[in-house]
Amino acid sequence: MYGLCDSFGCSKNTNIRLKLPAVCFIWQIAMIILFGIFVRYNEESDTHWIEHKKTKRNLSDIENDFYYRYPSFQDVHVMIFVGFGFLMTFLKRYSFGAVGFNFLIAAFGIQWALLMQGWFHSFGTGKILIAVENLINADFCVGSCLIAYGAVLGKVSPVQLLVMTLCGVTLFAIDEFIILNVIHAKDAGGSMSIHTFGACYGLAISWVLYRPDLNQSKRLLGSVYHSDVFAMIGTLFLWLFWPSFNSAICSHGDGQHRAAINTYLALASTVLTSVAISSLSKDKGKLDMVHIQNSTLAGGVAVGTAAEFMLMPYGALIVGFCCGIISTLGYVYVTPFLEKNLKIQDTCGINNLHCMPGIIGGIVGAISAAGATEYVYGSEGLAAMFPMVPRLQGGHQAAGLCVAIVFGIGGGIAVGTVLKLPIWGDPADDNCFDDEVYWEVSSEILAADLCAWKMLENKCNRLRQQTCSKYYLYYLIP
Amino acid sequence: MYGLCDSFGCSKNTNIRLKLPAVCFIWQIAMIILFGIFVRYNEESDTHWIEHKKTKRNLSDIENDFYYRYPSFQDVHVMIFVGFGFLMTFLKRYSFGAVGFNFLIAAFGIQWALLMQGWFHSFGTGKILIAVENLINADFCVGSCLIAYGAVLGKVSPVQLLVMTLCGVTLFAIDEFIILNVIHAKDAGGSMSIHTFGACYGLAISWVLYRPDLNQSKRLLGSVYHSDVFAMIGTLFLWLFWPSFNSAICSHGDGQHRAAINTYLALASTVLTSVAISSLSKDKGKLDMVHIQNSTLAGGVAVGTAAEFMLMPYGALIVGFCCGIISTLGYVYVTPFLEKNLKIQDTCGINNLHCMPGIIGGIVGAISAAGATEYVYGSEGLAAMFPMVPRLQGGHQAAGLCVAIVFGIGGGIAVGTVLKLPIWGDPADDNCFDDEVYWEVSSEILAADLCAWKMLENKCNRLRQQTCSKYYLYYLIP
Amino acid sequence: MYGLCDSFGCSKNTNIRLKLPAVCFIWQIAMIILFGIFVRYNEESDTHWIEHKKTKRNLSDIENDFYYRYPSFQDVHVMIFVGFGFLMTFLKRYSFGAVGFNFLIAAFGIQWALLMQGWFHSFGTGKILIAVENLINADFCVGSCLIAYGAVLGKVSPVQLLVMTLCGVTLFAIDEFIILNVIHAKDAGGSMSIHTFGACYGLAISWVLYRPDLNQSKRLLGSVYHSDVFAMIGTLFLWLFWPSFNSAICSHGDGQHRAAINTYLALASTVLTSVAISSLSKDKGKLDMVHIQNSTLAGGVAVGTAAEFMLMPYGALIVGFCCGIISTLGYVYVTPFLEKNLKIQDTCGINNLHCMPGIIGGIVGAISAAGATEYVYGSEGLAAMFPMVPRLQGGHQAAGLCVAIVFGIGGGIAVGTVLKLPIWGDPADDNCFDDEVYWEVSSEILAADLCAWKMLENKCNRLRQQTCSKYYLYYLIP
Repeated sequence: MYGLCDSFGCSKNTNIRLKLPAVCFIWQIAMIILFGIFVRYNEESDTHWIEHKKTKRNLSDIENDFYYRYPSFQDVHVMIFVGFGFLMTFLKRYSFGAVGFNFLIAAFGIQWALLMQGWFHSFGTGKILIAVENLINADFCVGSCLIAYGAVLGKVSPVQLLVMTLCGVTLFAIDEFIILNVIHAKDAGGSMSIHTFGACYGLAISWVLYRPDLNQSKRLLGSVYHSDVFAMIGTLFLWLFWPSFNSAICSHGDGQHRAAINTYLALASTVLTSVAISSLSKDKGKLDMVHIQNSTLAGGVAVGTAAEFMLMPYGALIVGFCCGIISTLGYVYVTPFLEKNLKIQDTCGINNLHCMPGIIGGIVGAISAAGATEYVYGSEGLAAMFPMVPRLQGGHQAAGLCVAIVFGIGGGIAVGTVLKLPIWGDPADDNCFDDEVYWEVSSEILAADLCAWKMLENKCNRLRQQTCSKYYLYYLIP
Repeated sequence: MYGLCDSFGCSKNTNIRLKLPAVCFIWQIAMIILFGIFVRYNEESDTHWIEHKKTKRNLSDIENDFYYRYPSFQDVHVMIFVGFGFLMTFLKRYSFGAVGFNFLIAAFGIQWALLMQGWFHSFGTGKILIAVENLINADFCVGSCLIAYGAVLGKVSPVQLLVMTLCGVTLFAIDEFIILNVIHAKDAGGSMSIHTFGACYGLAISWVLYRPDLNQSKRLLGSVYHSDVFAMIGTLFLWLFWPSFNSAICSHGDGQHRAAINTYLALASTVLTSVAISSLSKDKGKLDMVHIQNSTLAGGVAVGTAAEFMLMPYGALIVGFCCGIISTLGYVYVTPFLEKNLKIQDTCGINNLHCMPGIIGGIVGAISAAGATEYVYGSEGLAAMFPMVPRLQGGHQAAGLCVAIVFGIGGGIAVGTVLKLPIWGDPADDNCFDDEVYWEVSSEILAADLCAWKMLENKCNRLRQQTCSKYYLYYLIP
Repeated sequence: MYGLCDSFGCSKNTNIRLKLPAVCFIWQIAMIILFGIFVRYNEESDTHWIEHKKTKRNLSDIENDFYYRYPSFQDVHVMIFVGFGFLMTFLKRYSFGAVGFNFLIAAFGIQWALLMQGWFHSFGTGKILIAVENLINADFCVGSCLIAYGAVLGKVSPVQLLVMTLCGVTLFAIDEFIILNVIHAKDAGGSMSIHTFGACYGLAISWVLYRPDLNQSKRLLGSVYHSDVFAMIGTLFLWLFWPSFNSAICSHGDGQHRAAINTYLALASTVLTSVAISSLSKDKGKLDMVHIQNSTLAGGVAVGTAAEFMLMPYGALIVGFCCGIISTLGYVYVTPFLEKNLKIQDTCGINNLHCMPGIIGGIVGAISAAGATEYVYGSEGLAAMFPMVPRLQGGHQAAGLCVAIVFGIGGGIAVGTVLKLPIWGDPADDNCFDDEVYWEVSSEILAADLCAWKMLENKCNRLRQQTCSKYYLYYLIP
């Protein structure tokens, strides 16, 4: 079929027939070699478990950590692939790219994450010993890159995305190691290391890759009825499983239990305030799907760091309450501001869903750590939660937040500069947000197109015609 | 774009720009205050768990109830938000309202439910101590309100829905307390307390809000191809996780295990009989998506109360067998009858999916309780399952069912009367089932319009027209 | 509405108004009777558990196997109903049939599977005692029939599908019993017993039912934009939960843990090679949704048998690497070859997703079993994993693979011959892949058509135009 590209006449070459396969093969082969050298099963996933469990006060098979991490892992796994993937399907003609490229970069990222995180957490022993907990951490790590993808959605090629992911995972692993193991900050739900870092990373890249003429593609920068419904699949699975996300790597027992409860409550109150602000922001009080799809999740981001602390149920509600307001206002005022004044084009509004709530999360974590008292935690509980003095811990939390921001922005600018090279096959400004650039799209368009051509043949003047068939194509095909 | 409202000229003011935000803010702030006063973590989600577990025969962290309730909780959570939400997306132009308002009222309802249920189950101690089991119960409670939403889908404003939920949750908590704690009936899967109550509540409201001229909106009272596929997402997740729903709050051990098995079997046989009746009811034996989307779930409703009893696998199959037939016949005959003769307009047919099967479930529960024998249960098992004499238990089960019906109908009439006030911004009769009333809807419609114009202008002969429109059909209809 | 059938004039009678209900009722009643005679709860789901657990070193309720199998079961359950169902919704006008018939045959199949597998695994004791593990096995068994459905998708009637499932489940149970209990091969993830058998069964049936004039329906043999997005729901849930699928029935402890890890890794590397080959195979390097939807899953199939072995992380990556390539090349070259030269019409390309990868999985299993050493497994580990000598085990694995192929092809030919009888109400060659044959489809098509006509006929005075296009809008926009 003749794609839109031909009819509009693109300035750029988006042929990735050699680049994409080359990158995929090279990197996958590299993964195989590195896994061969470094990665082994740990004592709980190795056949030597039989001997191992005897040494550990005669563990039984059902005490294998698998049974206490795997359900949370699966929830997180669904969030990464279905949640993030479908959340980004809202564009009328970029659903394939949203869910497909999300799939591609996540599948690559988790492999590289297992290595990077493994190297950092398994010094000394030459081998990286993996179990289900490592898989959760790998999913978390990739999450930060998928957040970044949200900022550049529709404006980059899959090759750029793979480079972005390779660098993003690397930066994440260093960043996380510094925050958790050097600074000894706590960040169970990754408000700082995942959301703040990922969002800053993505926004910085988007800033470097600024496209002054992007409005040439604005016919495609919007949703159709069913693409919005698809996006709700992503929203709901993210919302539902967020309690698992924030509790997945907490230490077993009350901490994990509490993290799930706090997240559940924070998310619930976010929904009400998001709806309220969305309705206030529109004429006649109509709701905007963009706000419902995104801002309702902000509470989960913001409660991440403090989820395992004694935030108290009402504390969680307050965090959610504020984030729903801030995030929705972000979509109404901040996103246009960023584009107009700071030249940051943020397709999915990750600033409102991940950056601002992530920073709030870091601050909430610092405050609630600094304010921790023996009265609330109990002497043993306090000691178990905070190895160092609470007030000191608060300072370290704040330091962790700064590290995440610095790594995100710095890394993003560096990577963005690389991605600016004209070798990656990214789309032209009049050709963004369009699946036809990188996907074989089924031929309903051709049909519509043909119809449009038929019309052209008759008397109407070219200009109106052109516009018509254009609208026709883009709007009619849901 | 010009909305329908403008073109049809609605008589009613559906502007909720002040009402909706006001209600959301007031109620969310109230939640925060009440949670601040009453809600705390229980011993398993509190940092004092460290001391607590020592007192309890030296529990280990992995014996925290979190690990034995949380997977079931997540399944139930998916049912409430994805299951109920998407099941109602079948209408051609009300998918946003279905999944979006479901999201809103569920998120508000779970908070209020934690308080209401907490107050009833934590007399004496001033505080409500929450853990994952409370979250499950809150989800259950909200479930009954979402069932009620099904009856009024497309005919009420979000403000009315929030009022409906506030009252529904309140009534549910009282109703449930009476059934379980006063009458001491058993209702693991909530056939009585959730489904019968919720359906009666919704139908009563719908009866009070009867719209004689609703057929003015009947152009929108139907599905399109893809809206039916979206609805199947809801159907399948409800169907799949129903075993978790019916077993989620059973006491640990064989009861929970058995409840899951019975539900799995009941649902399986429901599918076959639903398909059979659906095919019989249509010319040429074609299947009706409405039946497949809804009636296939009736078995799960009906087996709820008796799920943890020794219903026996074949007993579960029989229950499912009957409900598939009754529920499908309900869609064919009862729903039209209710609308025509009883003036009950039931958008989703909750009478067929929740009311009738729920009542059957209550009866099945009463019979199987009354018929329980020591031979089947074993002496200890019988004592553990039924504190009182089986025959007596049967009577109490029946009493519980009556309570649920009375509360549902009575409460529904009362609440419906309040919702009838002309202050809630509900849509006009010619404007129901339309997302444009409360949502910003993207503008593909206008485009289709433009195109229709073009076809008109050209003079192509019938034949070409035919061919064109044929292609048009196949390619365009997604 | 006049369906496509009428406009094209079908030669065949597709009325199943008596056949389908008859089959459903007869088989469901048969299930009830057989369950009444044979099926009971096992000691973990029976009220006698109370006595039972005392006899077993005083088990506590939370040691009931329910808590260690149920989460995996639910993941598998989602794969069977949502995963397989939505994966097949990619056709533009067969989404109802894909997800609806998948639902029907799976719901019937699991009941019959519980009986067939029960009879084989509970000789001696007259009763079949079921628990959650049996439910997992029943889901597995049905999986093989759903794979077979993929080959005949859109070309058979629901009655044929039910017959196909009845026979398929029967054959599967025998086949599985021979492989696991007679030959003592190991097949945790069912590469041989589920995928190879199921695919051979389906392909053989499709070969017998070859339709020389199928291209008369080729207007419908393709996707539209949103049907491809729906299919991605299936793809992702299959991909995500495959680790649960391959580990669900492993013995508890390290084996189950390792199976999940190996599957996770194999699937990750499959994605990259599938994308690479897909891009290479197309002009301009555009990706093909068919490859992304299917080939990305091949790694999970191929790692099934060896998942619980000490395949090593890099070994899993290598398996996935190869399968992504082979499966994608299969879609590009093998499927057309099969249709052209072997007269096998394979709608979903199950040969590429299940047959070839399944056989590879069997071979990988045989090799890795034969190569097992005490050095890698540890003496106790080796003994626990392989009762017989590794090299011998390898031979038995290979034998198991052959059995699966023979049963699949032989059974498929036999069943296909029965299905060829002209009594089953299957569609005509010009009427395949069309939901209107067996489903009530909403009337947007007629509307669009009518509207086009109206516009032509009247000389379009703006006003009437307006009204017409209004209907148009509401029906056309999905």
